[in-house]
Amino acid sequence: MNPSGIITFLSDFGLEDGYVGIVKGVILGINPRARIVDITHQIPHGSILDAAFVLQEAWHFFPEGTVHLAVVDPGVGTTRRPIAVQAERHFFVGPDNGLFWPIIDRYPSSRIVHLNQEHYFRSEISDTFHGRDIFAPVAAHLATGVALQLLGPPIKNPSSLSIPVPEIRDNLLLGAVIRIDHFGNLITNIEKNTLEKFLGKDEAVIRIGDLHITGIARTYGETTPGKVIALMGSAGLLEIAVCLGRAGDLDGLGAGNPLGMAVTVSRMGDDS
Amino acid sequence: MNPSGIITFLSDFGLEDGYVGIVKGVILGINPRARIVDITHQIPHGSILDAAFVLQEAWHFFPEGTVHLAVVDPGVGTTRRPIAVQAERHFFVGPDNGLFWPIIDRYPSSRIVHLNQEHYFRSEISDTFHGRDIFAPVAAHLATGVALQLLGPPIKNPSSLSIPVPEIRDNLLLGAVIRIDHFGNLITNIEKNTLEKFLGKDEAVIRIGDLHITGIARTYGETTPGKVIALMGSAGLLEIAVCLGRAGDLDGLGAGNPLGMAVTVSRMGDDS
Amino acid sequence: MNPSGIITFLSDFGLEDGYVGIVKGVILGINPRARIVDITHQIPHGSILDAAFVLQEAWHFFPEGTVHLAVVDPGVGTTRRPIAVQAERHFFVGPDNGLFWPIIDRYPSSRIVHLNQEHYFRSEISDTFHGRDIFAPVAAHLATGVALQLLGPPIKNPSSLSIPVPEIRDNLLLGAVIRIDHFGNLITNIEKNTLEKFLGKDEAVIRIGDLHITGIARTYGETTPGKVIALMGSAGLLEIAVCLGRAGDLDGLGAGNPLGMAVTVSRMGDDS
Repeated sequence: MNPSGIITFLSDFGLEDGYVGIVKGVILGINPRARIVDITHQIPHGSILDAAFVLQEAWHFFPEGTVHLAVVDPGVGTTRRPIAVQAERHFFVGPDNGLFWPIIDRYPSSRIVHLNQEHYFRSEISDTFHGRDIFAPVAAHLATGVALQLLGPPIKNPSSLSIPVPEIRDNLLLGAVIRIDHFGNLITNIEKNTLEKFLGKDEAVIRIGDLHITGIARTYGETTPGKVIALMGSAGLLEIAVCLGRAGDLDGLGAGNPLGMAVTVSRMGDDS
Repeated sequence: MNPSGIITFLSDFGLEDGYVGIVKGVILGINPRARIVDITHQIPHGSILDAAFVLQEAWHFFPEGTVHLAVVDPGVGTTRRPIAVQAERHFFVGPDNGLFWPIIDRYPSSRIVHLNQEHYFRSEISDTFHGRDIFAPVAAHLATGVALQLLGPPIKNPSSLSIPVPEIRDNLLLGAVIRIDHFGNLITNIEKNTLEKFLGKDEAVIRIGDLHITGIARTYGETTPGKVIALMGSAGLLEIAVCLGRAGDLDGLGAGNPLGMAVTVSRMGDDS
Repeated sequence: MNPSGIITFLSDFGLEDGYVGIVKGVILGINPRARIVDITHQIPHGSILDAAFVLQEAWHFFPEGTVHLAVVDPGVGTTRRPIAVQAERHFFVGPDNGLFWPIIDRYPSSRIVHLNQEHYFRSEISDTFHGRDIFAPVAAHLATGVALQLLGPPIKNPSSLSIPVPEIRDNLLLGAVIRIDHFGNLITNIEKNTLEKFLGKDEAVIRIGDLHITGIARTYGETTPGKVIALMGSAGLLEIAVCLGRAGDLDGLGAGNPLGMAVTVSRMGDDS
């Protein structure tokens, strides 16, 4: 496979320090022609689940042959393995802590290697910054065309990630809020196909906290500002949103953080 | 016109999610040589006015042939049109909601087209993310040299934007705070030419809230830390600033947000 | 020396406005092939010390021939000089306010010039935005291969920066917290060599505020979540951290901001 020359970069490093720039310096020292595209560096500190969701939504919009560097690595310097993954003609580089599980789980033909060939690393390896010392150099080499199998031996037992999955019980589709985005939209784990199959020709009634919403809107701006709506978001997941406002700040969602809150869908006909 | 190969990108998407990276992935899939430069992604949610001000200040510092992608789009998926604009040998792509009005208004020879040629879009168009599905692909094609007129029919009635303009009344020049920047500087709508013409050879007395400032300073650091000053900022607009501090946090500006507050300039001689 | 074509960019401009994008537009107008890499734009407003620390940690990870543009410039428009520095086959461009002092101080063979050749500037120079009008154009020209000595006359008296240095007194190694990073880690001014020489074969006891920590951990994740640890960070400086938490928010660090707090190291044997 020809590399696209693009390396995407996702982390929880934030933007206040020099860490993101340092990783890019290391990449460009090895591969001066690499084109580095930030996905985000504002994953909540150590949240593998958030990192996995954002990466899963973003990677397939890039050209084939792209290398996706993802470093949310609370176990840096411990026994967790550094890995690289090849799936669907894309590469992924980072810690084996479940971050790539949604991709590995979905594409059983994924190839995974344990990164242990130190001549592809920086010459000095710290215990605290493998993004700089291991993952950045490996991503840079992959983007120059180094073959996956040269980077280390294949592994078959990558770490998995426990992701909340919606279920159907007693005429109810039971999901949860898995992310709150920049706009305050509450993104659930209910996929479009699951919802459509569940609803058939019935209209949806959606409940979260004290709120209930009837029907699925088509887009954010089609109603009056401030109104709570449910709609299929751009990632193909059911969202709760507020027209020109922030659903994450609504009253009626209990005290504090709506992350993880139950979202229940029923069919208009079944609903009492 | 030869494209510069540069695409600037301004939005209200924030940096926490994958949305900015996804748009860049779509661009690079179409135009692998595009050079994408972020203007900002922290426009307040849905604020077309802020987006228009920031874009107006930034675009002309880029080389001719640059494509400016600007997506602050509270009406996404509704009847508002997607457009592209050519003005002063630059291109602009985004929603027809007034975002480009300051540019269109200033350059009457601007050419505007309604983007309706779907083979320049992504094959699936969502109702909620036209930045990804329509505007990014069109910007990528423009940056490869596709001619504006191929993208859709010309339109003559673009949406306008109501921008507060200063006025002169009873020996007073009456303006307003239109933006507060990262440094807490209060940026007004009073342009250098307007101010100089109003003042003639007199010294300025500037009033905002309970504060009054005498004279126009040359730069931020020429006075004592903490002192309130007025000066001509780098965008050619009158600013209220605090030496090494934040004017936006001053007492004497009423309760809360100074955005939109009246700023009054009088001539020292006329002032009592 | 051949330029690498890379320009790094560090500032206190923030990301909300168009200032960072404008600087990049100016660079690309002069040097369309420049590759611009952000270090950070979130240096606290006017903090030359923070800028110097972040730059000092980051620059040497980039290839030789890289130009480092650094604009934290509270004295813009005053008598402080604009300068360029060549050290260790890297270039540095910005204000002469101490920002580059750690580099100049460490490499006595550094060459420094006073930027006064206006044909390398923008044609109009504001009093408030030399990042755009002087430093960006000079960085762009250096990255095309313009020789340092063409940019202005050499100077021998650059501004210095007062940096707190650890000292040894009565069997104690006395340091201070000089930065708090994105993860809330407290970064001290105690370098690895200094610590190892002081400790010899003894174990360390570290005190900050009401806390005391025994021993130097190897990495963040090797202990129980919430536990306070001391370790050598990736910049080679002693850090106080909390496993999966934020040391900056700990009780026992006195009221408020731990920046500048004393950090004391003693040898286990000496400690009573």
